[in-house]
Amino acid sequence: MEQTPEGLGLGDSSLHRYLDGEFWSLKNELRRALESSPLFQPRYDLSLDEMRDLTNQRVKFVLSLPLLKRVLQDQEEKRNNFISQSFVLGEVLCMVDVSMSIKEFVIDMPCENAQKMYIGNAMHGNYAAVFAQLIIEGKSQGPHCFIVPIRDENGNLYPGVTAIDMMYKEGLNGVDNGILIFDKVRIPRENMLDKLGSVTPDGQYHSPIQSKSARFNAMLAILTPSRLAVTFQAMGAMKLGLMIAIRYSHSRRQFGPKGKEEVKIIEHQMQALRLMSHLATALALTFTSRHAGHILDEDILQGRELINRRSLQALMAGLKAYSTWETVRCLQDCRECTGGMGYMMENRLSGLKCDTDVFVTFEGDNVVMLQVVARELLAQYSKQHKKNPFLGMIQNWTETAMDKLRTSFLVFNTDTVGHLAFLLKAVNFRERVLQRSLVSRIYYKVVTEKGDFFRAWNSCMHHVISLSLAHVHRVALEQFTLAVRQCPNREDQALLMKFCLLYGTKLLFQERGWYLEHKYLTPAASMRIRAQLLNLCESVKDDSLKVISAFNIPHTTIHAPTAGTPNTGAAEAFSPAPTQPLVQNGTRSRLAKL
Amino acid sequence: MEQTPEGLGLGDSSLHRYLDGEFWSLKNELRRALESSPLFQPRYDLSLDEMRDLTNQRVKFVLSLPLLKRVLQDQEEKRNNFISQSFVLGEVLCMVDVSMSIKEFVIDMPCENAQKMYIGNAMHGNYAAVFAQLIIEGKSQGPHCFIVPIRDENGNLYPGVTAIDMMYKEGLNGVDNGILIFDKVRIPRENMLDKLGSVTPDGQYHSPIQSKSARFNAMLAILTPSRLAVTFQAMGAMKLGLMIAIRYSHSRRQFGPKGKEEVKIIEHQMQALRLMSHLATALALTFTSRHAGHILDEDILQGRELINRRSLQALMAGLKAYSTWETVRCLQDCRECTGGMGYMMENRLSGLKCDTDVFVTFEGDNVVMLQVVARELLAQYSKQHKKNPFLGMIQNWTETAMDKLRTSFLVFNTDTVGHLAFLLKAVNFRERVLQRSLVSRIYYKVVTEKGDFFRAWNSCMHHVISLSLAHVHRVALEQFTLAVRQCPNREDQALLMKFCLLYGTKLLFQERGWYLEHKYLTPAASMRIRAQLLNLCESVKDDSLKVISAFNIPHTTIHAPTAGTPNTGAAEAFSPAPTQPLVQNGTRSRLAKL
Repeated sequence: MEQTPEGLGLGDSSLHRYLDGEFWSLKNELRRALESSPLFQPRYDLSLDEMRDLTNQRVKFVLSLPLLKRVLQDQEEKRNNFISQSFVLGEVLCMVDVSMSIKEFVIDMPCENAQKMYIGNAMHGNYAAVFAQLIIEGKSQGPHCFIVPIRDENGNLYPGVTAIDMMYKEGLNGVDNGILIFDKVRIPRENMLDKLGSVTPDGQYHSPIQSKSARFNAMLAILTPSRLAVTFQAMGAMKLGLMIAIRYSHSRRQFGPKGKEEVKIIEHQMQALRLMSHLATALALTFTSRHAGHILDEDILQGRELINRRSLQALMAGLKAYSTWETVRCLQDCRECTGGMGYMMENRLSGLKCDTDVFVTFEGDNVVMLQVVARELLAQYSKQHKKNPFLGMIQNWTETAMDKLRTSFLVFNTDTVGHLAFLLKAVNFRERVLQRSLVSRIYYKVVTEKGDFFRAWNSCMHHVISLSLAHVHRVALEQFTLAVRQCPNREDQALLMKFCLLYGTKLLFQERGWYLEHKYLTPAASMRIRAQLLNLCESVKDDSLKVISAFNIPHTTIHAPTAGTPNTGAAEAFSPAPTQPLVQNGTRSRLAKL
Repeated sequence: MEQTPEGLGLGDSSLHRYLDGEFWSLKNELRRALESSPLFQPRYDLSLDEMRDLTNQRVKFVLSLPLLKRVLQDQEEKRNNFISQSFVLGEVLCMVDVSMSIKEFVIDMPCENAQKMYIGNAMHGNYAAVFAQLIIEGKSQGPHCFIVPIRDENGNLYPGVTAIDMMYKEGLNGVDNGILIFDKVRIPRENMLDKLGSVTPDGQYHSPIQSKSARFNAMLAILTPSRLAVTFQAMGAMKLGLMIAIRYSHSRRQFGPKGKEEVKIIEHQMQALRLMSHLATALALTFTSRHAGHILDEDILQGRELINRRSLQALMAGLKAYSTWETVRCLQDCRECTGGMGYMMENRLSGLKCDTDVFVTFEGDNVVMLQVVARELLAQYSKQHKKNPFLGMIQNWTETAMDKLRTSFLVFNTDTVGHLAFLLKAVNFRERVLQRSLVSRIYYKVVTEKGDFFRAWNSCMHHVISLSLAHVHRVALEQFTLAVRQCPNREDQALLMKFCLLYGTKLLFQERGWYLEHKYLTPAASMRIRAQLLNLCESVKDDSLKVISAFNIPHTTIHAPTAGTPNTGAAEAFSPAPTQPLVQNGTRSRLAKL
């Protein structure tokens, strides 16, 4: 039975399952567990210590669930797409408490410095995973990972270890970030993780990877899956925010024709534009991050090392940057679209904003992440054009072999702005042109002008960022298109197709300046793109209730009065639940006038 | 003596005074008072009640200052530009505690509903200013303002008055917002403010304004100066945020040419692009808001009623929307540009973000504010084209007479993208074309197609918003240009000129899609605009230290370790203060390569 927007409990329709994906049943199990526990009532009145304690209790509760033990067992035995499983659990947890989904699920590791900041759980953990230079007989073998005991079982710090509490942050105050300082701490040889290298009892170093720089890259590769985890968490926050803002917009009325009832605020053009285009992005991210998770699981299943999949690393880095920036923008618009109500803590949006804000700079700053993407795209280019003298430099610089980014390529015939085929071609064109022109600019600066590489790269940074985002946009639109094609239910497919068109239209609208500069769009076509964007937002606004319902967020865990979900702490702010606008039988999805 | 970036205390150079404007001495007096009091140490460990108490104490401290009594005296006697004086004080206070600058400085007034939310000071105030329908012998005379006693001197609520505490918000938790509900509360006749109407002892109504709708507009006009106050406060937060992020960027080093020292992060192209373009906007806002404040004071001096200055109201509404959105964007970029450091409360950026976020929806939601601007621009158009049959409808709709927006018009000859004259012409062109095309679209929808006015207006909302922002952009660039021309010091003038060019270039870059659609820019010119933007940001990045120093924010009130200003609560996070890059004598302002 399909869940109505008014209903409580979990829904189960074809769209619910399609948006939830392969692990819908696992996600429902976790949702039911979260619904059943009184631990997840939101609290705004706690001190820092109390917030941390509450988060710890919540984490313990989740770790004690049978479903989590099964997932950890799968992880142990590397089966059942265990990575994707843990990502989707992170997405669900993020909707209840972002702090909880960060703590232990994403592990921040201290680097080789003797002092490292922002270590999550620094004030309570017993062990730390530390990356440190391995020096044997005065010779460095590069950074390796060591397990360092920092506290005994009574919570007392070991000698030589100092922990400083970093205290108050904008959000995530349930996570106790701190600074760890090590002074002549000694650990036994066995505490070195031996995946990439080991030391024999007589002090000899052995590693399956000969080159020190390759070992360093392998070390970095181990860190990348957590970037994809951040994407799932950001997406969870985005979906919850959209659910709250869209339900409110279908309930609250303001302004209208003279002498008549005021209209629902979703009828206001700007409200529909802001919320519907973010909703389309949330759907695009759903399918794209799922795709990346599948590749990752498949690689692990087939025993491939991540080090050999720089293309996948690039996709994960790019998605992390794109998804977290989109989340910040989306939640800001959700906050603004709910007016002063959105500023009250009980309506959740403010807290989500504060908690997820850090995503754009942690697990790798977004601007740095996008440089990782561009490096990969340039390396691909140089591989395809082997005769180019530029090849050597780029190859040397990216240091390892790479394979093509695994993305589908779709061929179409028609060329009108209202067709998905046109939009797909356009985003492909943009990526290709930005890639080629970046190569030639860097080549000119470094080879012709004999400039320093860092300076050349830095002077093209705006170009670099544009290319990397264009890459992620292209992959996302392609993955969204594939998901529409593969959707088994006709009605769901028609609905998703409208959002997919909206997403592609938004991408072109945002970059219409560039397309006009490159004469890919005529002025008239560019103006049509704008009209198309506004028409599509108007045409999907009633469908949006069905989509947010299929996000399947248990109503009893939302606690946002503006969304028509009760909050005992702020009864006076309750808005009525929205009702699905009446539609004719079978014509629920009104077609866009394109 | 010019203040060095490292110095403490207040600076006093020609640039300091020019950026501070006419009331620099008054502002310094307030800054010194804030520096001297221990009340203004930032606190993050307080409960809601403690935060409110602290804000109350701070407000009391400020109200007890002799300078404030002088300003209030000026207000009483309507002299010495008392409105501009209170605005600049709000800007300074906002840098220390945004809650404090809101409480009583901006007064939120409940509307005619029997229940009203978001009333500041609702949990402690003794009186409320209430707008209510005045009904005499069953006939409504429209809303009037009444002073309603809500609590006795011991803080007990009077009968019939209910106050509900709204509790936790994203920020501004020093302000106690609440809901007031009135049930059959009786007040004497004298409690009605009689500026717009009064009631005689025998129950007769008298008003200097005959038309009920004109009285309603007059009532709304009284509320508009507080919108300009919000602009000043937003600007204060923006300047403080920029100061922190720019000082950090000149101190922190990361990445660099192989084998050499890492570079300061301000050298990174994206860092300079993000921070310098916001700094240019902060300067544009400084001069534009000052201009609006001067008009307001002049009008009051000459006894003009605000009701007759709809153009000024439009400018204040537009500036409020533009400045607050720019503040949100700027503080977000400052947060991101300082990485994880920016997420820690002691570095102030997170708190500034949370406190000022509400500005975009309070004192009139920004989307609504921009509709006020567009209505005025359409009314102007219809006045200029009297023969148009559309005139009647628009005039009827805007309801009152209006005069032209008071903005300067500048005439230039040359036409290259690197010249300010070209940029000024471009922003003028955009406003004019958007205005004309909006008129014809609405005319077609309403007159030709006989559509409902609300629907027609709503279907053009994206156009409406674009026009209104284009108007504010044009006024801001013109005011910035005037301020550069009038700057008495040659060196300061050269420096401000570069930022003014940067500001204009940014405006064109943002809207290059539109300019290309309208063939105002050729593709080649559009690409030059992008290069010019990047070059200008690079060329002003060293000058930026001088500009932020001239914002004259007392270092002892900043408490942000990343900015190189000490914070006793987070000593470990201290970054060294930046040093002004060495420059040759007399060539401090390196010219942009344009």
